[in-house]
Amino acid sequence: MHPLFEPQSVVLIGSSKIQEKVGMTSPQLFDGVIYNMLKFFRETTFVLDIARERDYMRLGDLPKIPDLGVIILPPRQSLEQLKKCAEMGVKAIVVITGGYKRQEREQLISLKREYGIRTLGPNTIMGVINTANGLNTTFERDLMPRKGNISVISQSGGVGACLLDWACFYNIGISKFAFMGDKIDINDVDLLRYLNEDSQTKVICLYMEGIENGREFIQVAKKVVETKPILVLKGGVTKEAAQRALSHTASIAGSDTVFDAALKKAGIIRVENGEELINSAVALAKQPPLRGDNIAIVSNVGGPAILAADAIVRNRLKLAVLSEKTRKEIENCYPGLEAVNPIDLIADARADRYSVVLDLVLSDPNVDGVMVINMLKSCFFELEDALTIAKVIDKHVGKPVVDVAAGGEDFTLVHRVLQDTNIPVYNLPEKAAKALKALRTYYKSIEKQFSAT
Amino acid sequence: MHPLFEPQSVVLIGSSKIQEKVGMTSPQLFDGVIYNMLKFFRETTFVLDIARERDYMRLGDLPKIPDLGVIILPPRQSLEQLKKCAEMGVKAIVVITGGYKRQEREQLISLKREYGIRTLGPNTIMGVINTANGLNTTFERDLMPRKGNISVISQSGGVGACLLDWACFYNIGISKFAFMGDKIDINDVDLLRYLNEDSQTKVICLYMEGIENGREFIQVAKKVVETKPILVLKGGVTKEAAQRALSHTASIAGSDTVFDAALKKAGIIRVENGEELINSAVALAKQPPLRGDNIAIVSNVGGPAILAADAIVRNRLKLAVLSEKTRKEIENCYPGLEAVNPIDLIADARADRYSVVLDLVLSDPNVDGVMVINMLKSCFFELEDALTIAKVIDKHVGKPVVDVAAGGEDFTLVHRVLQDTNIPVYNLPEKAAKALKALRTYYKSIEKQFSAT
Repeated sequence: MHPLFEPQSVVLIGSSKIQEKVGMTSPQLFDGVIYNMLKFFRETTFVLDIARERDYMRLGDLPKIPDLGVIILPPRQSLEQLKKCAEMGVKAIVVITGGYKRQEREQLISLKREYGIRTLGPNTIMGVINTANGLNTTFERDLMPRKGNISVISQSGGVGACLLDWACFYNIGISKFAFMGDKIDINDVDLLRYLNEDSQTKVICLYMEGIENGREFIQVAKKVVETKPILVLKGGVTKEAAQRALSHTASIAGSDTVFDAALKKAGIIRVENGEELINSAVALAKQPPLRGDNIAIVSNVGGPAILAADAIVRNRLKLAVLSEKTRKEIENCYPGLEAVNPIDLIADARADRYSVVLDLVLSDPNVDGVMVINMLKSCFFELEDALTIAKVIDKHVGKPVVDVAAGGEDFTLVHRVLQDTNIPVYNLPEKAAKALKALRTYYKSIEKQFSAT
Repeated sequence: MHPLFEPQSVVLIGSSKIQEKVGMTSPQLFDGVIYNMLKFFRETTFVLDIARERDYMRLGDLPKIPDLGVIILPPRQSLEQLKKCAEMGVKAIVVITGGYKRQEREQLISLKREYGIRTLGPNTIMGVINTANGLNTTFERDLMPRKGNISVISQSGGVGACLLDWACFYNIGISKFAFMGDKIDINDVDLLRYLNEDSQTKVICLYMEGIENGREFIQVAKKVVETKPILVLKGGVTKEAAQRALSHTASIAGSDTVFDAALKKAGIIRVENGEELINSAVALAKQPPLRGDNIAIVSNVGGPAILAADAIVRNRLKLAVLSEKTRKEIENCYPGLEAVNPIDLIADARADRYSVVLDLVLSDPNVDGVMVINMLKSCFFELEDALTIAKVIDKHVGKPVVDVAAGGEDFTLVHRVLQDTNIPVYNLPEKAAKALKALRTYYKSIEKQFSAT
């Protein structure tokens, strides 16, 4: 699989003339991929335009044999080029475009059998991204996430594009992106195996509509989960949508109850939508697993802390009961402040009050994790305070902390300040509670793994 | 109640010297309110600083009697000033600051009894906003939402501030904002009654932690719902959080099951978090109620359309079965396109294809409402296409349409283009489905009202 993500050289094969309605082949798309590869990829990129009769560079004329071919052509031409690539020793192919009929799919598979060449796709639309070497076969110009340790596998181009857009917009650290498309060869299991070995991947996000080799997938996933959390968003959960998924990516969904039970057994964390997928992944990438249910809420606003408390309980966590010692120490430091969880630091709290209280709360054996709420609006809290708090939290290793700056501008500002720290930030207490739940679910998975061995 | 939102003149009473930990009294806060009022309020604003001995302007010296007083002082000084205001004929008071003890609350109530002066608060923190006349007693400088027809009542300053921040950041049209605080006098019922008469209010959002006069509230709400939808977010739903809400705003929550049943009976729409509150309000403000369950999904991406279909079904709506006529017409126009709901227009769809299909789908008697998904990333859709689509949709009166641009940047761009149209935009299909559900719930409420009479 390495040639897919870590090629030494790549050849982009498309046409500056062919435009097809079905399957997305177009000069515009070809140009986009060329643009991104030349801009970001730090190894060699060759470009092969099959429409330019005169300055046509035959695959055989390339100064060296590329590890990876990226094909943006209709099925017939794709297969021709793929065969040439296979013959000359190219190790893997990304087929961006779609529209393959059954017979053409079979030809693709037989090439793999004959030459050992691996194919991602067809119909991947966006292909692959590796932030480590700048590989980016998407046609969306300049859409390159920052380096990080979250990897994403998406069966759907559209859902993958949405997740990629989300990651870029919120500056979320990404390691790899793989769009599987019709996955006639390289599939979820292959990618999971690769990402398991990939030292730059810490958390794996997966969008899937169906799974063929379910048993193998669960077996491999179970192994991966021992060291790396896997999050799954599934489309086609309801009967009505599942029927449609069948024609979308030819996925057979099966019963959701069975699927859900299988995921649980493998220790996979299931999420409900794309935002929760990314939000949970960020928490898992930045914070340790949650070793117990007891959450303390430390806030400068009362109402959002009440909503946070509701969300904690609804996500089957508990409001920590502070130890008498912690309670007394807080109340000694700040007379008039009632040190009952959720702790309302009152609207004039700045970094100093947060720091003292967080230090005490994070040292309390009754507390397993903390949700910090720091609003700017209606409060005296300043942006610089957020950074100070992040440093205090960093000293307490082993207990996860998530931050809430509820609202639109408040979130944007605090997120911008904290995005380079280890503290995940959310725009609603309800979302922060779900992130804590993911940290708890992961802890339970690995705990189970350990006790089983 | 008119003096609270539509005063001809307002006096701001605070101190440039008093700084108190409890209750938020501070020169900084006083300055903020003065700044906003002088900048936005289009009628007369007087400022009375009780700390400036020399140029002290006594209330009696004001050139005319203000309708509304806004007080930013500790309890003792507040009560002194409130009494003076009451004596001279000021009709309403907003008490921004908090920290009132039982005896001081009683004094406030007795002033109402003696002089008929009405009080919002104490502890409202942010007070009131009316975008029609520029009244803005919040201390957050320049935090002024655009004019519109959504009004918000919040028991909590923090939750209200979060909603206000959200509204400002996403440029959501607001009519009134009222922060109730401890609501010792003016309460939910008074505000509902006022907003019911307010021609600029079309949708009412309410954050509450508890309700004392439950029976009256439900009775009034039921009447309001006949012409204006009411959305409720409740804090303190779980036992654990409810105990805390008791000390936060002295609210007695009671059983959530009872509360929920009462809301349903009154036709109030209950939401789960602040984002859903605003999202649903925007849908109700911009689109007609949903007359039936049958939703068509029209998308340029397959995966998000599958997730949308799941979300539609999960929200107890149905995937519309297109009539044979519609199906044939679409497939005649676009051979190769399978006109099955969710309709995948394929990634190269531009405004023309969307317009033709939306025209047909919205004319189909089998369709009650539509979710449009138009992604930019991984598609050929352009921003200008969004505007064209909005015009097509506007021609079909009576059937609600919501739009999804899934992701971070995609949402931001499409939202910016569509924010001045009637089409609400969401960043995930799951959120658009919830908005449709709110439109359906409201239709069922008014239908019930009509059939009951």
